[in-house]
Amino acid sequence: MNKIALAIHGGAGTILKSEMTPALENEYRKGLENALRTGWEILQKKGSALDAVEASVIELENFPLFNAGRGSVFTHEGKNEMDAAIMDGKRLKAGAIAFVKNVKNPIKLARLVMEKTEHILLAGEGANEFAREMKVEFESEEYFFTEHRYRQLLKAIEEGRIQLDHSSESKIQNPKSKIGTVGAVACDFRGNLAAATSTGGMTNKKFGRIGDTPIIGSGTYAENSACAISCTGHGEYFMLGVTAFDVAARMKYKGLSLENAANETIERLTKINGDGGFIAVDASGNVVLPFNCEGMYRGCITNELEMKIEIYR
Amino acid sequence: MNKIALAIHGGAGTILKSEMTPALENEYRKGLENALRTGWEILQKKGSALDAVEASVIELENFPLFNAGRGSVFTHEGKNEMDAAIMDGKRLKAGAIAFVKNVKNPIKLARLVMEKTEHILLAGEGANEFAREMKVEFESEEYFFTEHRYRQLLKAIEEGRIQLDHSSESKIQNPKSKIGTVGAVACDFRGNLAAATSTGGMTNKKFGRIGDTPIIGSGTYAENSACAISCTGHGEYFMLGVTAFDVAARMKYKGLSLENAANETIERLTKINGDGGFIAVDASGNVVLPFNCEGMYRGCITNELEMKIEIYR
Repeated sequence: MNKIALAIHGGAGTILKSEMTPALENEYRKGLENALRTGWEILQKKGSALDAVEASVIELENFPLFNAGRGSVFTHEGKNEMDAAIMDGKRLKAGAIAFVKNVKNPIKLARLVMEKTEHILLAGEGANEFAREMKVEFESEEYFFTEHRYRQLLKAIEEGRIQLDHSSESKIQNPKSKIGTVGAVACDFRGNLAAATSTGGMTNKKFGRIGDTPIIGSGTYAENSACAISCTGHGEYFMLGVTAFDVAARMKYKGLSLENAANETIERLTKINGDGGFIAVDASGNVVLPFNCEGMYRGCITNELEMKIEIYR
Repeated sequence: MNKIALAIHGGAGTILKSEMTPALENEYRKGLENALRTGWEILQKKGSALDAVEASVIELENFPLFNAGRGSVFTHEGKNEMDAAIMDGKRLKAGAIAFVKNVKNPIKLARLVMEKTEHILLAGEGANEFAREMKVEFESEEYFFTEHRYRQLLKAIEEGRIQLDHSSESKIQNPKSKIGTVGAVACDFRGNLAAATSTGGMTNKKFGRIGDTPIIGSGTYAENSACAISCTGHGEYFMLGVTAFDVAARMKYKGLSLENAANETIERLTKINGDGGFIAVDASGNVVLPFNCEGMYRGCITNELEMKIEIYR
């Protein structure tokens, strides 16, 4: 049996330990752990990498502290617009959606694009129409992230868990700067790879900006002969660097190991001024989780390594 | 002085000589020649590759027989939705737009995204809003392609030029199957590279499908240390193959020449069942125009090679 492996992330960026409270950190860790366990259970039962990454990302989308699904930030117009992509490294198939609204789990919709259409990327009102035809689960506006509700949530965590800690609001992560993405990559017992990424985009974004998440080759990529990868960070630089495919290309065309390819890609990202990181896995079950910024919510597990969950450098 | 070079395309696909009339073929050749001359003049006057590819693509967008700008096909809802991308290989900067409406020259808007925003890809209503803020030229619905007007145009070409040829309508290219893209790549006297691609999308497309054209790394890519490339064909396979960046990656990571990298990428495209082709140029002014289907409207010129315009294999 092949080594099985799963890695997830909940976004990278300016995550400073000095601005985090123990209660909030604990909450983030629980969210990551839950998502890892869900995908891992599938892999352990000889499920597919594709099912595992979808299941893990659904958990991350349902967790309100990450910027995806339920926790998605608001656009300039006060709306939730979500992007997601999934790729099957075995069949070299992919599906993605950009700015869908009110869809509970964008990653499920991305998978439906892959399985039920001849297209790869559907966007905007058309993607929502597809969602309605597919009868995916919709949620009302109230379900999704609001600044008010987000602050309440953080306050509740603080008050409920550490009653003596009266941290000032300034210590609480500013929802205005809430950025990030969630993602998962997996290698199953057959050595098949898959990647999935989902995001609520940039707070206050304008002009229908699409970032790297739904772009195959930039934010998401999977190919059995190389690796599965899910990125997070300042999307525009991942698009210019074609970052996800860049890791695969260095493995395929330079013959590098996953680790060396990943390090070179991070070097290149840094060189072009891109901030962020990614998670990646190869068909031998090797896992890397590199980033070039202060922190990345991340976790991984393989049948040789115990579950590991980390936030800072 | 560096060798300067320019290549353009007007789409690839099922272009059969048996279905083409001499008058129509002449019209296509004139459209390609005009676009080549416009960009070439800029390169000869020591203008930049970026200005040259933009100018050539503007001409191709204004030419009604190609599926871009004026000649854009209709979506399922009877609307024109246009995509375009431009990339500057010197600065590694890019701009792209997806489904804008009524914009006369989508490539100009893509360049404005590159020069005036921190984003790379804007889509839908937001992209149109950006177009209005930028005060780009808009055209009424009548300006753009209609099936009726397209048939009239083809008929006029036939009747006006070859009065004895009474070709049946069945011989006339079916507008329902009008597919394609236009694009240009250039190397200027400084050895700077640029690529530009523009399309009217798929006839009868649904669900807000976005193809490879506005995706950096798939339909469009430029990097001085490798090549500039513009793709055309069945977009979904160019997205899965991350085709534009794949050529650059083979040059950078395998040390291949442009020609060998291009041949390997076309082989891979064929292997994953993708139909189409691309034009590419490197910083030494080498040009390739490979494709794996019946034909590709294409042309190129360098200061060592005379202007060449071809349609079939």
